[in-house]
Amino acid sequence: VRAERLVIIGGVAAGMSAASRARRLNPQMEVVVLEKGDYVSYGACGLAYFVSGVVPQAEDLVIYTPEYFRDQRGIYALTCHEALEILPAKKQVLVRRPDGETAPTDYDKLIITAGGAPDVEVPGADAPGVFRCNSLADAIALRAFLEERKPKRAVVIGGGYIGLEAAEALRRRGLEVSLLERSATLMEDLEPEIGQWVEERLRAHEVSAHLNSTVSAIDPAADGSLVVSYGQRQTLTADVAVVATGIVPRAELAARAEIELGASGAIRTDDRQQTNLPGIYAAGDCTETFHRVTGGAVYFPLGTTANKQGRVAGENAAGGNASFPGIVGTLVTKVFELEVAKSGLSWAGARAAGFQPEVVKVDSRSRARYLKGKPLRCTLVADRPSGRLLGAQLAGEEGAARRIDVVATALAAQMTVADFVHLDLGYAPPFGPVYDPLLVAAWQALKAIGRRR
Amino acid sequence: VRAERLVIIGGVAAGMSAASRARRLNPQMEVVVLEKGDYVSYGACGLAYFVSGVVPQAEDLVIYTPEYFRDQRGIYALTCHEALEILPAKKQVLVRRPDGETAPTDYDKLIITAGGAPDVEVPGADAPGVFRCNSLADAIALRAFLEERKPKRAVVIGGGYIGLEAAEALRRRGLEVSLLERSATLMEDLEPEIGQWVEERLRAHEVSAHLNSTVSAIDPAADGSLVVSYGQRQTLTADVAVVATGIVPRAELAARAEIELGASGAIRTDDRQQTNLPGIYAAGDCTETFHRVTGGAVYFPLGTTANKQGRVAGENAAGGNASFPGIVGTLVTKVFELEVAKSGLSWAGARAAGFQPEVVKVDSRSRARYLKGKPLRCTLVADRPSGRLLGAQLAGEEGAARRIDVVATALAAQMTVADFVHLDLGYAPPFGPVYDPLLVAAWQALKAIGRRR
Repeated sequence: VRAERLVIIGGVAAGMSAASRARRLNPQMEVVVLEKGDYVSYGACGLAYFVSGVVPQAEDLVIYTPEYFRDQRGIYALTCHEALEILPAKKQVLVRRPDGETAPTDYDKLIITAGGAPDVEVPGADAPGVFRCNSLADAIALRAFLEERKPKRAVVIGGGYIGLEAAEALRRRGLEVSLLERSATLMEDLEPEIGQWVEERLRAHEVSAHLNSTVSAIDPAADGSLVVSYGQRQTLTADVAVVATGIVPRAELAARAEIELGASGAIRTDDRQQTNLPGIYAAGDCTETFHRVTGGAVYFPLGTTANKQGRVAGENAAGGNASFPGIVGTLVTKVFELEVAKSGLSWAGARAAGFQPEVVKVDSRSRARYLKGKPLRCTLVADRPSGRLLGAQLAGEEGAARRIDVVATALAAQMTVADFVHLDLGYAPPFGPVYDPLLVAAWQALKAIGRRR
Repeated sequence: VRAERLVIIGGVAAGMSAASRARRLNPQMEVVVLEKGDYVSYGACGLAYFVSGVVPQAEDLVIYTPEYFRDQRGIYALTCHEALEILPAKKQVLVRRPDGETAPTDYDKLIITAGGAPDVEVPGADAPGVFRCNSLADAIALRAFLEERKPKRAVVIGGGYIGLEAAEALRRRGLEVSLLERSATLMEDLEPEIGQWVEERLRAHEVSAHLNSTVSAIDPAADGSLVVSYGQRQTLTADVAVVATGIVPRAELAARAEIELGASGAIRTDDRQQTNLPGIYAAGDCTETFHRVTGGAVYFPLGTTANKQGRVAGENAAGGNASFPGIVGTLVTKVFELEVAKSGLSWAGARAAGFQPEVVKVDSRSRARYLKGKPLRCTLVADRPSGRLLGAQLAGEEGAARRIDVVATALAAQMTVADFVHLDLGYAPPFGPVYDPLLVAAWQALKAIGRRR
């Protein structure tokens, strides 16, 4: 009997997780990964650290090479191989090889982990001196430009966590940095009380952030600089621009093969990561995922989710039976010294999802009173009728990032704030105040819910 | 109508939480706290920081004074007032006042928060130069001795977290420190892989720790030093000794009033913190509590638990209806630079509780590979037949303490390891590796369970 053949389209987080899991579960299976770029398996979340120079070499971000996968895991990870078409009726993928030739390859099972593509919507984003920071190739190009041309003024377009990390990286390299965000909020849905701390931190590091500032065009000037037009006829001149306006799912290939997409435009899967076509799975930034708080599908591309989904897809493609329960929308980042973390829904997000939310704010510190510590702020959102915890956000120089995981865990367990207040969280003076800020916030939320009911 | 009168015996964590909650819920209620010591409402968890000098003044540990409670909260917190007898038939407490006079005081509701007493079992522990570190008075006496007599050699008896913190405090003051622990394990039930790191850290700071070393006597020598006899006829000579062999519940007063005690010798209450006698509640270090993992009663005295139980007792005494769901056994501390954290059951504890546990160990780091970080170790225990998460322990210089709260939350929700592996924990390179060590441990536990079943 011929061995079953698993083809995976895309070799970053989801793809390599899927490949590894499938091979481990079914060592007879032939596993082939088609990656159109030069690298597989790199730490995409560390791109900003490579741009800033904290991570010296691009290779430092590469977790495993194709040789490693071949020799140690029996996986064929083919770089510079682009999947052009999926032909479900023939169980084939049409592939462009590095030599430019196009040929079909057979599969028994297929996993699509095509990732996300830059959400190109800024006119002029293809001008020289304009970069993205979504892939290792993007980051290498940007850093080469920074080192060779030594630009002085940078503009970052987009105030999500990628934009914030890019702004910090550029500032650390000594550039003057402006940041333009089209909405009124940084990081998509920060509560105003948390966003305010992020804005203050940017100001303290001389990054000028402009909210409500949609970019209408990037125009190259005669002297080689870039003129960025935004808002009501305002302009900024810069020597380098980074477009970080988010990503959209790479789902055209799937759509052309009549694989069903969700309302978000990303591939729809069930909780086993299977698409509407038998034997075809999808995972990572090209898919939707289930949001455990709203109970609906959401597009929330993130490396950790991609790894988990990839593992599930790999297990199922190899004949196992795994399921992915979904996400709760946890996101952490560092804005200079400030840790910023969120999980679940913001007040506005909860309203939009049909809840009747109450939001509370607590200002606390990262250590016991007599050990000083750093200011720590948290907000917490709960649903009035059900008493359910819906989300929380934290900011502070110490103790903010890891503390959000309590919220992520409680959201997965669908806890009420009445349950939450009695959590047996650890306490010692160097690690927090005796009344944990999250527990204080939950008490306040409980009170707010009672008052309004 | 006469206002209801609530009397509270004991004015530290549980007592003052109860008083504050009762007054807030029922501002008509007269609230009287009887505290036999000189202070109410102090940060008992910070005593070691006062001994070391990191916290300069004893007053820095005092959160609120009796005057504050009287003026701001309408609570009469009477220091140097010792409750001698509870007379439930008369609804009275017999009190010794500061002037030595004894008089009864009436109550409508009573809350016993008498705390814990040193587990005095070491012969000679009353010799001069031998101290405890359980109360603010203990810590003041110890520090005065250190500053006035300038002892050079210290011995700490007991390797629980109080003993470890005392050893560090003494070492930071420049003393030679030996630590004697009667059992084979530090911090009661550390897994060997975690305990080993704690022992290494003590060694690195020249604290010589001796396990399996029961102290049989402390004898004052002619020159004023102390000779500590332990193990098989071994001795240590020291100038100061700190006995940190744990505490036992102060429950005699309750027992004499025919208030029921549990098998642990601590006061038994229901989940509303009510004792077997109507109108009499108990909370804090004099009570047992429900362990949410074992499902049984346990004596696990801790300030955060005392605060929570006190609040529940105060609410119920004031006519409300609150309940305390119990603990999961979370404990964090810092041993020099090393954060040590545990929650739930150790492998041995799980066996003793009737589970069929598997334990796994994961060595990881506190940041993404390319940002270096510090070594981080975790162990995780799961139950084979049910797949339930039973506990975890963590050690490392960064990211250990707060990470345990994920485990505490998952234990409260009675998660299985199969649920746990899919938790949407936050990831960013400065805060952890892309595969969180706890999630990796849960995967390994899942595998270990599958293999054995």
